[in-house]
Amino acid sequence: MYKIGVDLGGTHIGVGLVKDNKILSTYYTDTPKDRDFVKTVKAMADAINTLLEKNSVKLSQCDGIGIGSPGVAEEKTGNIVYSANFGWHDAPLRSELQRYIDLPVAMANDADAAGWAEYLLGAGRGSQSCITITLGTGIGGGMVINGKLFSGGMSGGGELGHVTLVADGRECGCGKKGCAEAYASATAMVKMASEQLAQHPESILNKVEQLNAKAVVDASRQGDELASKVFADYVNYLAHLIASIINLIAPQVIALGGGVAGAGEYLLEPLNKRVDRLILNKKLPRARIVCATMGSDAGILGAALLEL
Amino acid sequence: MYKIGVDLGGTHIGVGLVKDNKILSTYYTDTPKDRDFVKTVKAMADAINTLLEKNSVKLSQCDGIGIGSPGVAEEKTGNIVYSANFGWHDAPLRSELQRYIDLPVAMANDADAAGWAEYLLGAGRGSQSCITITLGTGIGGGMVINGKLFSGGMSGGGELGHVTLVADGRECGCGKKGCAEAYASATAMVKMASEQLAQHPESILNKVEQLNAKAVVDASRQGDELASKVFADYVNYLAHLIASIINLIAPQVIALGGGVAGAGEYLLEPLNKRVDRLILNKKLPRARIVCATMGSDAGILGAALLEL
Repeated sequence: MYKIGVDLGGTHIGVGLVKDNKILSTYYTDTPKDRDFVKTVKAMADAINTLLEKNSVKLSQCDGIGIGSPGVAEEKTGNIVYSANFGWHDAPLRSELQRYIDLPVAMANDADAAGWAEYLLGAGRGSQSCITITLGTGIGGGMVINGKLFSGGMSGGGELGHVTLVADGRECGCGKKGCAEAYASATAMVKMASEQLAQHPESILNKVEQLNAKAVVDASRQGDELASKVFADYVNYLAHLIASIINLIAPQVIALGGGVAGAGEYLLEPLNKRVDRLILNKKLPRARIVCATMGSDAGILGAALLEL
Repeated sequence: MYKIGVDLGGTHIGVGLVKDNKILSTYYTDTPKDRDFVKTVKAMADAINTLLEKNSVKLSQCDGIGIGSPGVAEEKTGNIVYSANFGWHDAPLRSELQRYIDLPVAMANDADAAGWAEYLLGAGRGSQSCITITLGTGIGGGMVINGKLFSGGMSGGGELGHVTLVADGRECGCGKKGCAEAYASATAMVKMASEQLAQHPESILNKVEQLNAKAVVDASRQGDELASKVFADYVNYLAHLIASIINLIAPQVIALGGGVAGAGEYLLEPLNKRVDRLILNKKLPRARIVCATMGSDAGILGAALLEL
């Protein structure tokens, strides 16, 4: 039997056909520009049907559909309780999709779906608890605790990016000051560098074509003073976030994904050292901090593998 | 049938006889000064036997013993994995106690045991998830999620007091800079006040017999400028901690205990307002923030009610 995974994004809808924990085929379509709920679900259904036709797979050969979507997905009701990105409130995603396709539908937040794949098949494989932190434009988090997706006691938890790192510090996109996202996302790293560029005319960052996290990491590797300082500050902030997570939730594995994680050992080595100094229970074993291994299709795969 | 609850503290061992969710009788004894493991467990056993004799209750009338102890208690092995306060490592508390008393023994961290009572019978009653935050000398936390005590994916989680609030900020007793405990404990409130006393000769805090959290709260109520400023800062830091917990774990109830919670509505009203501004998902229902109701025997009662 096949499983179908859907990764609903702001610009694209990705669907994938999954068998034996592997993606056999994917298909991508545009998310309707106005993000209208009915149109978006129709596009999702069309994409799934196209994927099945392309692979000559019948509905009767499929167990069900798993959807990873932005915002707060409520598995019990099948609703998207709230999505700021899509402007949806209590949107009945499951029942609307089932108007087109008669299969069981499982749902999760998109970062949770990706974290589920990482836990099952990636860096968290073999563990019972794995928190995946995606360091990109923002900070996303997928938490698996005691073998289950964990999104808190009621809707709206799991927002790793909006844990306070510096009370009343840097402004975050959410309106609050001092969130982890304002210090430890790829965007934050770039912002910290660009703010100091003018005072550092000697920095090679003044000459890069595109000032992004990779450029900062590369310049730091080459010994650029500004880049090295920014990267060290970044590592310190990320270490504070991770130490807070370890002190509070103590997962077995913390898997880092997103653009910044591309730095690999260059990030992990100073990060691990700093985390060792920041955690409370220094004499107890703590989470392994590693890079995520599932890549960009983790969202589709994790969605497909959600429990129906 | 009776249950026996034990609250193991640094100076006292409290034991209580519990029936139908109520403490019928308590007995207290000193914790051995050197906190030697064998001596301490012997003192615990003696206290339990004294309690039973005092109440003419036989061992055969008891279901079992629950112990709340400082440090990291491992229910599976029955060991105290680590306690900084007692200097214990892998101390076999259950088996050592069972040398004296042949009853099943359940174990939890002391703050978790108190949080368990608060969840079952106090401010968290009727909820499925309740986090009790004790604002005292330090900050203790007892987390119940989905009806179960939650101490993380592996040993050492649940340390609410050591979540970062201001990266590299005020020094905390744990050696890290910027922990919640250094900003939002009763001790922190007093420290923030005393640091500013000299610049505020007009403050009535200069004249109080004992500068403690209650004195700061009382002076703030009376409109004292310094005390009002310190209290407002305190509320802001505590709100950041609570907002982080809501963003990450989204419990249904957050119950505040310890000395500072004695301020009641005077604390809760500005705190709730500030938390509303700091949480991410402003359009979703969020945790009720209330004062804990179980009082100082919560530790004994919660320990007695641990699942055997």
